Amino acid sequence: MQDKIRIGIVGYGNLGRGVELAVHRNPDMKLAAVFTRRDPKQLSLINKTVKVLPIGQAGKMTSEIDVMILCGGSVGDLPQYGPWFAARFNTVDSYDNHANIPEYYDRMNRAAAKNGKTSIISIGWDPGLFSFFRMLSEAVLPQGKSHTFWGRGVSQGHSAAIRRIPGVKNGIQYTIPNKEAIEQARSGEDSEMKTEDKHVRECYVVAEEGADKESIARQIKTMPHYFAGYKTHVTFITEEELKREHSGMPHGGFVICSGRTGEKEENRQLIEFTLKLDSNPEFTASVLTAYARAAYRLNRTKCFGARTILDVPPALISLSPPEELRSKLL
Amino acid sequence: MQDKIRIGIVGYGNLGRGVELAVHRNPDMKLAAVFTRRDPKQLSLINKTVKVLPIGQAGKMTSEIDVMILCGGSVGDLPQYGPWFAARFNTVDSYDNHANIPEYYDRMNRAAAKNGKTSIISIGWDPGLFSFFRMLSEAVLPQGKSHTFWGRGVSQGHSAAIRRIPGVKNGIQYTIPNKEAIEQARSGEDSEMKTEDKHVRECYVVAEEGADKESIARQIKTMPHYFAGYKTHVTFITEEELKREHSGMPHGGFVICSGRTGEKEENRQLIEFTLKLDSNPEFTASVLTAYARAAYRLNRTKCFGARTILDVPPALISLSPPEELRSKLL
Repeated sequence: MQDKIRIGIVGYGNLGRGVELAVHRNPDMKLAAVFTRRDPKQLSLINKTVKVLPIGQAGKMTSEIDVMILCGGSVGDLPQYGPWFAARFNTVDSYDNHANIPEYYDRMNRAAAKNGKTSIISIGWDPGLFSFFRMLSEAVLPQGKSHTFWGRGVSQGHSAAIRRIPGVKNGIQYTIPNKEAIEQARSGEDSEMKTEDKHVRECYVVAEEGADKESIARQIKTMPHYFAGYKTHVTFITEEELKREHSGMPHGGFVICSGRTGEKEENRQLIEFTLKLDSNPEFTASVLTAYARAAYRLNRTKCFGARTILDVPPALISLSPPEELRSKLL
Repeated sequence: MQDKIRIGIVGYGNLGRGVELAVHRNPDMKLAAVFTRRDPKQLSLINKTVKVLPIGQAGKMTSEIDVMILCGGSVGDLPQYGPWFAARFNTVDSYDNHANIPEYYDRMNRAAAKNGKTSIISIGWDPGLFSFFRMLSEAVLPQGKSHTFWGRGVSQGHSAAIRRIPGVKNGIQYTIPNKEAIEQARSGEDSEMKTEDKHVRECYVVAEEGADKESIARQIKTMPHYFAGYKTHVTFITEEELKREHSGMPHGGFVICSGRTGEKEENRQLIEFTLKLDSNPEFTASVLTAYARAAYRLNRTKCFGARTILDVPPALISLSPPEELRSKLL
């Protein structure tokens, strides 16, 4: 019997905790250690028997971990320590700074390839599953048009922007796909839709006592880059309502591709992929964990260097062996 | 500049014709020849300049074709000539006889591997894209439950069964997903749903003059294996109505996977993949054609033998090179 795949987690925020839960659901894996920049004593893992170590000790653990799942952020953490880990471990991460993916890929690829390791980058649902569906749709319907919609979900960046306005005590922002735009994408009749036509922004704001609510609402709606140009709704609520109704981390979205086939383009073909997630970090963690299995298998067959979701043969993420997939799932 | 991928088509029915159209939409491919068991003069291609040859001459064309797309049926054609082609050409096919896929895979794998060729089998949407989504969902949410729904679409087998009843002049059957079952799959609350609970069968029948319509309807609804156990609607129409309203070949369906995450399984995660196809054969042909690109590329990198959709790195089906995919699509 094959030993279990030994997983390490770097960074124990919402995503890292999601990975802990996901590893537990996968019978061929076990969690070997969690690495943190905080004081290890401050971390409260679900499984109390798992080692928690300072991130500085990771270098000593190379022979005890098969795949390291990097759960840090894409702005500070991953560009800083990603290549260091890629040189020492097989890794999976959710790097999502779209514009810098090519550069990050090159750095991770060099570090991993030189050291006989395998790194799968930018895994999750966008980038990740959604990237795969955009590519698939374009390959199958080359003259088709594909649209991505995000939401209904919490945008951390927009929520933070609201909270920076004077007089705002707390607030949260949901990005919501515009129903008419979805119908337009399905009909295949649009030519170009901007992100701001495709989404509505819903804000729930707790104002400080005596604050000018009209002014706050105006400042939100006209904020450049974040809200200006969007259809934005602002609702004032109490701190209690915020805690009670808005403490989850739901998200999701659609990739819709509509194309035409036929001698006279008379046939419409519609492909849709939808996610409705009660917990964004737990779902992202579930995808990362499945791809940790692929990183392990790729490395065992000497496929070294960096990969994205587009490079990985799908069967490598499955618990089931290829013969079973062919007989039961195909 | 790289030469175009030279495609051959074996069998020119609805699927073969769809491949001809799809090759035309892909700028890196050209159609080299069509092979048929009929008299070549009887075929009316869209592009009249393409060679049409008797299937017996295919063996002489090995150096003129990069990938052969096998467009025959899964009962008679593919098991008969698939391995012969796999030994001489890179191939793609839509073999869809689910129960016999493992055996067909083995035969194609042996023929292709021994001769340095690459064969991608069982491509299309089910088996094919739907197989991929079932596998993906189970890998990401191992304790989740995934359901496949087919339709609204024409079932050739059920339509033929109706037409065999005495007194029936013509008829067509649509498989339609049951809306309540879809909601149940989305809610994740079902444990087991049978295919007959998940689908409704809608029959449009042209009766011969003087035929006993009540008896026909009863014979349809009670027909074992085909209709018994299903909710079946029978509507009698005229031959003209049948021709006018029911001559298209629409199909589609859903793969819905609902699973739970969280320490107390408190978060529901829903993955849905939907196809709405005006033309089933043209869409299947579009998928086959995209995977012909992958067969060509796999063979160039000496990946010989048989593959399914689960074994092929997704980027291999794309027109765009990997760097472009990383910078634009990821």
